[in-house]
Amino acid sequence: MANLITLTTDFGTSDWFVGTMKGVMAGIAPQARLIDLTHEIPPGNVRAGAFALAAAFRYFPKRTVHAAVVDPGVGTTRKAIAVQTRRYIFIGPDNGVLSWALRNETISRIHLVQNTRYFLQPVSRTFHGRDIFAPAAAHISHGLPVQELGPVVTGLIRLPWPEPRRSKNAVDGEVLYVDRFGNAITNIPASLVEGLGADLTVFHGRNQLCRVASFYGAVAAGRAVAVAGSSGFLEIAVNGGSAAQVLSLAVKARIIVRSR
Amino acid sequence: MANLITLTTDFGTSDWFVGTMKGVMAGIAPQARLIDLTHEIPPGNVRAGAFALAAAFRYFPKRTVHAAVVDPGVGTTRKAIAVQTRRYIFIGPDNGVLSWALRNETISRIHLVQNTRYFLQPVSRTFHGRDIFAPAAAHISHGLPVQELGPVVTGLIRLPWPEPRRSKNAVDGEVLYVDRFGNAITNIPASLVEGLGADLTVFHGRNQLCRVASFYGAVAAGRAVAVAGSSGFLEIAVNGGSAAQVLSLAVKARIIVRSR
Amino acid sequence: MANLITLTTDFGTSDWFVGTMKGVMAGIAPQARLIDLTHEIPPGNVRAGAFALAAAFRYFPKRTVHAAVVDPGVGTTRKAIAVQTRRYIFIGPDNGVLSWALRNETISRIHLVQNTRYFLQPVSRTFHGRDIFAPAAAHISHGLPVQELGPVVTGLIRLPWPEPRRSKNAVDGEVLYVDRFGNAITNIPASLVEGLGADLTVFHGRNQLCRVASFYGAVAAGRAVAVAGSSGFLEIAVNGGSAAQVLSLAVKARIIVRSR
Repeated sequence: MANLITLTTDFGTSDWFVGTMKGVMAGIAPQARLIDLTHEIPPGNVRAGAFALAAAFRYFPKRTVHAAVVDPGVGTTRKAIAVQTRRYIFIGPDNGVLSWALRNETISRIHLVQNTRYFLQPVSRTFHGRDIFAPAAAHISHGLPVQELGPVVTGLIRLPWPEPRRSKNAVDGEVLYVDRFGNAITNIPASLVEGLGADLTVFHGRNQLCRVASFYGAVAAGRAVAVAGSSGFLEIAVNGGSAAQVLSLAVKARIIVRSR
Repeated sequence: MANLITLTTDFGTSDWFVGTMKGVMAGIAPQARLIDLTHEIPPGNVRAGAFALAAAFRYFPKRTVHAAVVDPGVGTTRKAIAVQTRRYIFIGPDNGVLSWALRNETISRIHLVQNTRYFLQPVSRTFHGRDIFAPAAAHISHGLPVQELGPVVTGLIRLPWPEPRRSKNAVDGEVLYVDRFGNAITNIPASLVEGLGADLTVFHGRNQLCRVASFYGAVAAGRAVAVAGSSGFLEIAVNGGSAAQVLSLAVKARIIVRSR
Repeated sequence: MANLITLTTDFGTSDWFVGTMKGVMAGIAPQARLIDLTHEIPPGNVRAGAFALAAAFRYFPKRTVHAAVVDPGVGTTRKAIAVQTRRYIFIGPDNGVLSWALRNETISRIHLVQNTRYFLQPVSRTFHGRDIFAPAAAHISHGLPVQELGPVVTGLIRLPWPEPRRSKNAVDGEVLYVDRFGNAITNIPASLVEGLGADLTVFHGRNQLCRVASFYGAVAAGRAVAVAGSSGFLEIAVNGGSAAQVLSLAVKARIIVRSR
C-alpha cells in the first residue's frame, strides 16, 4: 500500500536530471510517492552512495523500492540489477552501490534489469537513471514482479566492508563517511564501543582526539567528542563545528578507541 | 483534509538525514504530504530557522503541521514541544525556533513531546529529528490529538524579537536574515516605512546605502535599492547582484531609514 | 489524471521561497503532485532556465503544468503568460524562459496571466513566483481553463536559438549549458554529428579537445571525450572529472566537430 520509491544518486539538484527521472516514474506509477534520500553523493563515489543507502533504507515501510544510481560505469558493460529482499526491493547498477545495504538483508532473488520493454526508448548511453532505473523502479512499484525485469542471477558485486578489529582494550577502525556537519562516521559499531568500558579515548593513529561521551553537548563548544551516532556507528564530532576540518579527518582515516 | 507536514531543518540535503525522517513519517502517515521549507538553515542557527519558519508558515492550508528541527541542544535537557494554534500545529525543540512564527498566532495549547509510545525506538542521542519529531509530527498529522504527546506546559522559550525604533523622521532597525540572492531582510515592517513618506534614504550606520523604491528593477543593474520584500519587511537588494557582498551587510547590521 | 506541476526556478533551496510556493499550491490544488525540476538556475539566468526546461519537459505525462520562474524583471512591466500546447501547459514570465521548450511544441493558445482573482492577495512586488505563478499553475492543474487567466495574446518573447552551422566536413556550434558534472552541453544535435562520419575530432576554436565516442568510459579517467548526451545534443565530458574546468569551457564557447 505504501508504494514508496526512494532515490539515491550523484546527479545533484542543480540540473534537471532528477526531475526527469521523477517525470518518467510519475507517468508509469502515478500513485507512487518519490522520496529523495540524497542526490549529493560525490560524482561517481560508489562507496559514499553505498553508505548513505545502508544508513537509510531500514527507516522506510515494507515494500519500498530503493533505487540507487551512482553509476560511473554507465554505458559500459556493467550490469543493472534488482534485488528483492524480505522487506524491500533494491535497484541500481551492479557496482557495489547496493551491497552495504544488503549486508544484513535476507535476499530472496536477484534479477538483471534487462527487459527493454520496461525501459524508456531510446535508451541513452549516458543517463540510465532516467532511461532504465527510473522506469524499472516505477514498474516494480506499480506491481511488476521483479522476475519480469530479466533473468535471475546468483550474486552481485559487493564492496568490501572494512570490519573493525577488536583487541582486549581497544577497537581499531576507520572513517567511512563525513557528513554535512563534518562529523566523521566510523565503521565501529556503537555496541562494540560499549563493550570496552566507560572511560574511553579516541585516537587518530597516535594522535589523541577526544573522549567518548553520550551526546555532542557533553563537551564545550569547539571541543571534539565521539558519540554513538544515529547510524549505529561511533562518530567523531566537534560541538558546534566540523570534526573533519578541526581534526583533519577524512574517509579512511584510522581511528582507535582505547580503554584506560 | 490537506494533511500537510512542512519540514524546516539544518540537516542539509547532502546526506540521508531528511530522507530517513520522511521514511519514518511515510510509515506512520501514508497519506501525509511532506513539503520541505528548507534544510539549509546554517547548522545550529536557531534564529535563522525561526525567521524562515515565521516567513513561510502562513502560506500553508489550515491544519498543516509545521515541524522545525534546528536543534543544537539535541540530547541535552532541552524540551521538545508541540504548539497548537488556531490554524496550525508547530512541533520542534523548545529553544526558540518556533517562537517567531508564534508571535502573531493565537496559541490554543502547548504540550511536551514526551510520550515515548509515539517515538521511534530506540531513540538515538543525536538525531531526534528522525526518532522523535518525525514520528510525532506524523502521528499528529494522522489525527492524534496534541495532548496525547505529553503534559501541558504554560509557556515556551521565546527568542527576543528586535523591534525597530521609530522616531519622527526615521526608523532604526537591523538585518535579520540574508537570503540566497544576498538580499538583506530587515526587521523593519514595510508598513512602517510607508508611514515615513515618499523620499526615503537607507543607511548602514552612517553610510548611505540606497533609496527606497517599489521593486528591484527601479535601479540600474549593480545598484542598490531597498524594497518592501515578500516577507513584509524592508529588504536591501542589489539589482542583479548580492547586497550582502556589495554592501558588506550581515545579520545584525544596523539599518536606518530616513526621510529628507 | 496525472495532475502534475513541475517547478523550475532560480530561488534556490536555502530559503523558504519554494516551500511557500508549494504551500500556496497545496491550498488550491490539494491533489496536485509537485515535482522540482531544479531551483538552482543561476539567479536571473533566463537562458539556463530555458535550457533546463527544454531538456526536461517532454519526460512528463500529458497535461503536466510546467511552471518556470526565472524572472529578473519581476515587478516591472514584463508580462506573465500561460501557453497551452497539445500536450502541456507552460506558465511563467514572458521573457523567453518558456521559449526553448516551445520550439518543437504545437502551441494551441497563449494567454496573459492577468486575472487577479487567481492570484494570492496582496501581490508582492518581488515574489510573483508565490503570489501569481504558483496559484495560477495550481488553478490550471485543478481544472481552470487557461483562457480564464487573461486575454489571449498572439505571440511570446523568444530567445534566439543558436543554430549550429553544417559544412561538408564539419559542424560549428557552441556550448549552451554546463551541468553539475562539468559536462559542456552544446547546441549540436547528436543526429547531426552522426551524419559526419565515424572518425570525428572536436575543437574549441583551434584547440583540439577530444574525439567523439559512444560513452564516457570510452576514454581513460581524466581524459576528454565528446558523446551524444542525454538531452540529444553533443556534450563534452572528462571521464571522472569536469570538462568545464579541465578544458576551460564555458557557455558560448565555440565548438567545432570535424571529420578527417
